[in-house]
Amino acid sequence: MMMRAFSEAQPKVAETIGAVSSAETDSARDFLARARAVIDAHLEQIVPAATVEPVTIHSAMRWSLFAGGKRFRPALLLATGEAFGAPTHSLLATACAFEMVHTYSLIHDDLPAMDDDDLRRGRATCHIRFSEATAILAGDALQALAFQTIAEEQDLDAGVRVALVGELARAAGTPVGMIAGQADDLAAESRTDVTGEELDSIHRRKTGAMIAHAARCGAIIAGANSRELECVTSYARQLGLLFQITDDLLDVTATAEDLGKTPGKDARAAKATYPALYGLEVARARAHAVYDEACASLLELERPTQTLRAIAGLILERQT
Amino acid sequence: MMMRAFSEAQPKVAETIGAVSSAETDSARDFLARARAVIDAHLEQIVPAATVEPVTIHSAMRWSLFAGGKRFRPALLLATGEAFGAPTHSLLATACAFEMVHTYSLIHDDLPAMDDDDLRRGRATCHIRFSEATAILAGDALQALAFQTIAEEQDLDAGVRVALVGELARAAGTPVGMIAGQADDLAAESRTDVTGEELDSIHRRKTGAMIAHAARCGAIIAGANSRELECVTSYARQLGLLFQITDDLLDVTATAEDLGKTPGKDARAAKATYPALYGLEVARARAHAVYDEACASLLELERPTQTLRAIAGLILERQT
Repeated sequence: MMMRAFSEAQPKVAETIGAVSSAETDSARDFLARARAVIDAHLEQIVPAATVEPVTIHSAMRWSLFAGGKRFRPALLLATGEAFGAPTHSLLATACAFEMVHTYSLIHDDLPAMDDDDLRRGRATCHIRFSEATAILAGDALQALAFQTIAEEQDLDAGVRVALVGELARAAGTPVGMIAGQADDLAAESRTDVTGEELDSIHRRKTGAMIAHAARCGAIIAGANSRELECVTSYARQLGLLFQITDDLLDVTATAEDLGKTPGKDARAAKATYPALYGLEVARARAHAVYDEACASLLELERPTQTLRAIAGLILERQT
Repeated sequence: MMMRAFSEAQPKVAETIGAVSSAETDSARDFLARARAVIDAHLEQIVPAATVEPVTIHSAMRWSLFAGGKRFRPALLLATGEAFGAPTHSLLATACAFEMVHTYSLIHDDLPAMDDDDLRRGRATCHIRFSEATAILAGDALQALAFQTIAEEQDLDAGVRVALVGELARAAGTPVGMIAGQADDLAAESRTDVTGEELDSIHRRKTGAMIAHAARCGAIIAGANSRELECVTSYARQLGLLFQITDDLLDVTATAEDLGKTPGKDARAAKATYPALYGLEVARARAHAVYDEACASLLELERPTQTLRAIAGLILERQT
């Protein structure tokens, strides 16, 4: 019952495009904090305890899963599902499945053969805390558990569940999902001639696919029709792009204290980013234009989309 | 239509336990060869072409998937499904999904941080042919594609598909699946006091779970009842154990030419094996006893299980 309160008590916001009020960003922050608590509690139930054999693998899965992640993808799934009237409990299994896939991708991404990162969110990455072999296996197990969690969610019709498994698999895999984007990103690292179109294409798949499909899954669980699903997809695609542009901007402009990590890493790695390609001012203007497009997609929905709009506003204005 | 011929024209075999006729092993060889051709053709359709972006990942997925594997798990799924009357076409998607998960596990298992193997079936392993990063991502993408393939198989009811996704996920993950077995196997490598019980437990999960669940999925697609499913599970668990014992025996007794790989690797690695634990003669007797138990489980089924029995016989007698 408590969980249904998510969509209520949101401040009325003017439905004009381009302006983000502080009431909106506050409302989005509140929503995300409450969503995070509910998602963390559900993940806690889904993932085997660290005392269950094999202890090392379950400890490693939990180490990375409960490392202070923002739960952005599952929170977006909740926000979308609730905008279409789905009760929170019907959304949680799928929301957690998206978080498990996201987490496995971070574990594998941090491996020495990939980005070779020792720290994430201020603490040791999975392969540093455990071992490379354990990190590989823990990531693999999280992916399997994600699909199992959806398949075995008794709250949902089997027809909905197979649609959700398909959505998550496409979001995670190739040719249009996360793995495809990661592969292109790795290939682009050694190049200095990455175009804006290529950069969009990398991010649309590397981070955008999981964000877009998370939002779609919320709508699918709520029984949205195909026109509504198209609007949600369009909104979430812009949201994913916005997330990436502001991430790139923060890497240039934020302080280490704000970020909790060392800024300027992209520039030192000569990585293709929006500010590097377009300059700071044009990249900022692009962020505002993408935010406007995201809001425009929401206006086509005759639904209470305040939370979805507020989330986009929060990302546009984010300082971390 | 051609594919329905699999279960036909099998020689009548005496239903006594313990004896394997050459007609049986020939029949099993024929079945496996025909199953392999059908599975290879279906995998060819499922996996994106090597020309589809990201080209490196799809090339790597195909490099390992079409590396001459025996297709044992998917063939077993076909044999089980057909014994219960399912048409071959209804079994192929799930059969291929098991093979994709099996292949991803080999790719990750060969990585430097895991078994560090440069060669598999006489050719370069995925990370040697491509790169470690590509091998990690190709494995991850194969796992996603496996679940997607089942979820999107229009030939099967949604209720059956979610059951199959759950079966594959449990077989692949933790705490009772493949990853759990791999983790225990890694942990046992540094120990010299592994007991027979522990060895059984490692293999029951590392290789046994995927074999048992493949057989179960064939029966589930065919609509087997829960008593039948129990018999199939019992048969396939023994089959998985038999596979491992004979694998260990071959490592001691076979020549490199027979195996296509260097024998004696286990002993040099001081790995816990059945012959190392029990001695050659007792391990051989154990193989025969396990074969008998597998056949006994089949006798409880009032179904044409000749092919399933012949497969067990072929594994008992195998030289490679």
